[in-house]
Amino acid sequence: MNTLDSKFLKLSTENAPGQEGQQMRQDFRSLLRGDVLPGRMVDFSHGDVDAFLPSPGAYEAFKSGFRRGGAQAYTEYRGNAAIRTRVAQNLAAFTGAPVDGDDEMIITPGTQGALFLAIAATVNAGTKVAVIEPDYFANRKLVHFFGAELMPIALDYAGKAGMAGLDLGQLEDALKAGAQVFVFSNPNNPTGVIYSAEEITSIADLAARYDATVIVDQLYSRLVYDSGTYTHLRAVRTVPANLITIMGPSKTESLSGFRLGIAFGSPQLIRRMEQLQAIVSLRAAGYSQAVLEAWFTEPSGWINERTRLHQAIRDDLLELFGRVNDLRVRVPDGGSYLFPELPDLSVSIEDFARILRHQGNVIVTPGSEFGPTSHQGVRLNFSQDHEAAVRAVERMIELIGRYRE
Amino acid sequence: MNTLDSKFLKLSTENAPGQEGQQMRQDFRSLLRGDVLPGRMVDFSHGDVDAFLPSPGAYEAFKSGFRRGGAQAYTEYRGNAAIRTRVAQNLAAFTGAPVDGDDEMIITPGTQGALFLAIAATVNAGTKVAVIEPDYFANRKLVHFFGAELMPIALDYAGKAGMAGLDLGQLEDALKAGAQVFVFSNPNNPTGVIYSAEEITSIADLAARYDATVIVDQLYSRLVYDSGTYTHLRAVRTVPANLITIMGPSKTESLSGFRLGIAFGSPQLIRRMEQLQAIVSLRAAGYSQAVLEAWFTEPSGWINERTRLHQAIRDDLLELFGRVNDLRVRVPDGGSYLFPELPDLSVSIEDFARILRHQGNVIVTPGSEFGPTSHQGVRLNFSQDHEAAVRAVERMIELIGRYRE
Repeated sequence: MNTLDSKFLKLSTENAPGQEGQQMRQDFRSLLRGDVLPGRMVDFSHGDVDAFLPSPGAYEAFKSGFRRGGAQAYTEYRGNAAIRTRVAQNLAAFTGAPVDGDDEMIITPGTQGALFLAIAATVNAGTKVAVIEPDYFANRKLVHFFGAELMPIALDYAGKAGMAGLDLGQLEDALKAGAQVFVFSNPNNPTGVIYSAEEITSIADLAARYDATVIVDQLYSRLVYDSGTYTHLRAVRTVPANLITIMGPSKTESLSGFRLGIAFGSPQLIRRMEQLQAIVSLRAAGYSQAVLEAWFTEPSGWINERTRLHQAIRDDLLELFGRVNDLRVRVPDGGSYLFPELPDLSVSIEDFARILRHQGNVIVTPGSEFGPTSHQGVRLNFSQDHEAAVRAVERMIELIGRYRE
Repeated sequence: MNTLDSKFLKLSTENAPGQEGQQMRQDFRSLLRGDVLPGRMVDFSHGDVDAFLPSPGAYEAFKSGFRRGGAQAYTEYRGNAAIRTRVAQNLAAFTGAPVDGDDEMIITPGTQGALFLAIAATVNAGTKVAVIEPDYFANRKLVHFFGAELMPIALDYAGKAGMAGLDLGQLEDALKAGAQVFVFSNPNNPTGVIYSAEEITSIADLAARYDATVIVDQLYSRLVYDSGTYTHLRAVRTVPANLITIMGPSKTESLSGFRLGIAFGSPQLIRRMEQLQAIVSLRAAGYSQAVLEAWFTEPSGWINERTRLHQAIRDDLLELFGRVNDLRVRVPDGGSYLFPELPDLSVSIEDFARILRHQGNVIVTPGSEFGPTSHQGVRLNFSQDHEAAVRAVERMIELIGRYRE
């Protein structure tokens, strides 16, 4: 097999969230037990922006951008300067440390675009990259794509409340062994755990000591529940020289349809990311960039109310899952993911996901997408219609019962 | 210098179109002769979408997409299936050969996104890639980024009307020597020449014979003047097994602010491109995808009128340039670029571009962006306000006179 073939084999998207329509129609009828459970389809692979509507002012900001014409259509590759300045002020206030909109920020097509550019700016063939398991599936895929070397770091997320469960010794070993980049999401995707102040400070100290680059995906950092307190890595005492923070309005704000992300941090890395964006996508869609003017400027109380509504769904689903024997699930401190580890089933987790879809009208993402250690987990994005989500998890639980070992 | 440093050194965007705001402020005052010429600023680095407005129905289609909600925000990575089907029909009719919207098409963030994915799907470290000189600057940069080997193919664009001037012998030599990929734009960017039917047929035959992949960027193929006839590579008798055609509504249709591109062709390459898009940007902005419903369905006569207006500007600017001794310029057969090669000047072409901006309120792109052989060329995108473009070229000609050797 040539190297391009093997490279793309590792990028399989068959089980990725949202790609269910591309799945091979396998003959799995022989696996099925019992009948279809009626009920409204719930797609837990991503949030439902018809249940949690795009944040107020977003569409109007787009419209203003379009009306502005050429000045908004063609921005610098890193994005419109005036918008960057405004977003920088908001992100400085939010994260608790200054951001220079000129030199320290780039607007990208979604946070996925930011993550790709950050990895591409720091990782080459052979670069050693420390990656949390479980974590967002693209982290590992990007490492594979650039022919870099993956150094997995365990997350004992089920272990102890108030912390994420990072194995700091393992991280230090990886850095000692030459890891030049450490990438992780906080809140963690798929488990929703938030790293404690001690964990974040230790990561920063280790990165500074070993001169490693840190890429922290804070996509869900505006959605933090009563149970969580959030520490921004970029605002701790000793910040690593090479640090990129990634945020964006796709999730909590339900603005994924505009494809907007922000990377902010070390100017030398932002510069590389812009050079690369020039040949990857030119820029985030010019008119969409205007939507960022409505970000962090939502009406007073809006984010609190959105958080409260998500927490209510979280708690109801946790209560349901709590009734299932041998099912383990960590209470998420932030974000809108639940990551239950299911009891032993008579079918693989990928087949169970297909069964859920076929017999329960429920779509979930198999845990194997997030790392090789998560064989029995499934991820649910619970940013859904509350009632529909409850009904869907009830069906899921009935099917777990049906397919138990 | 480590390899990442050297990789990014080749991606410099300082002189790239639209990036003038990022240029280093060099002390070039000592070079200046005479005074500033008054006049309205014309930015020839890209088209003016305030002069040629976004095509009819585009904004309304976006609005409908937004109103459609979640179904439009979250599409498959390759784009919304119903939109792909419709676009495939239109592109089949336009290019003269069938397109399957399911297997043979991907919607990308701009044609830049399509080009990046096409190259990334076919080029690896060490891959030999045949690239036209001059041609779109990103072609060469992408080859460098992937650590591939550039095999330049000369274009004698000034040579003979009715053809592009491709050196077919050189292309065959490159393929014989192992070039696995050939990438080119048609109409050519920056010269506006269109490849003749014979040239396109020969490219297809050679690619088939040597089993090479062809990536053809047809971004400007809807804007063809009286002087040009257009041959779609994908519709000739012997089509190479691996062929990707790239189009999009960013230029002729003035829809760049939505960031939309289309790649269509060999299913196995489209599949790879989708796997990659999943980790590069997820998808083209969902709501923007809806804009494609207004593409190729503009009111009757719209494209002809837009072509006529561009041809009128082209002819007026050519007439002006024709008065300048020792200035050579090929009549473009399509697209909205003029690529005059200036007479010998007392300053470098990059400095002259800065002088044009400073003293003439005129922005052009130095030819060196398009290949090492174009030392005296500058590119002008003449999709501008007609009168303003004429005045700007008059100022440019006065400054050429002022800075001649």
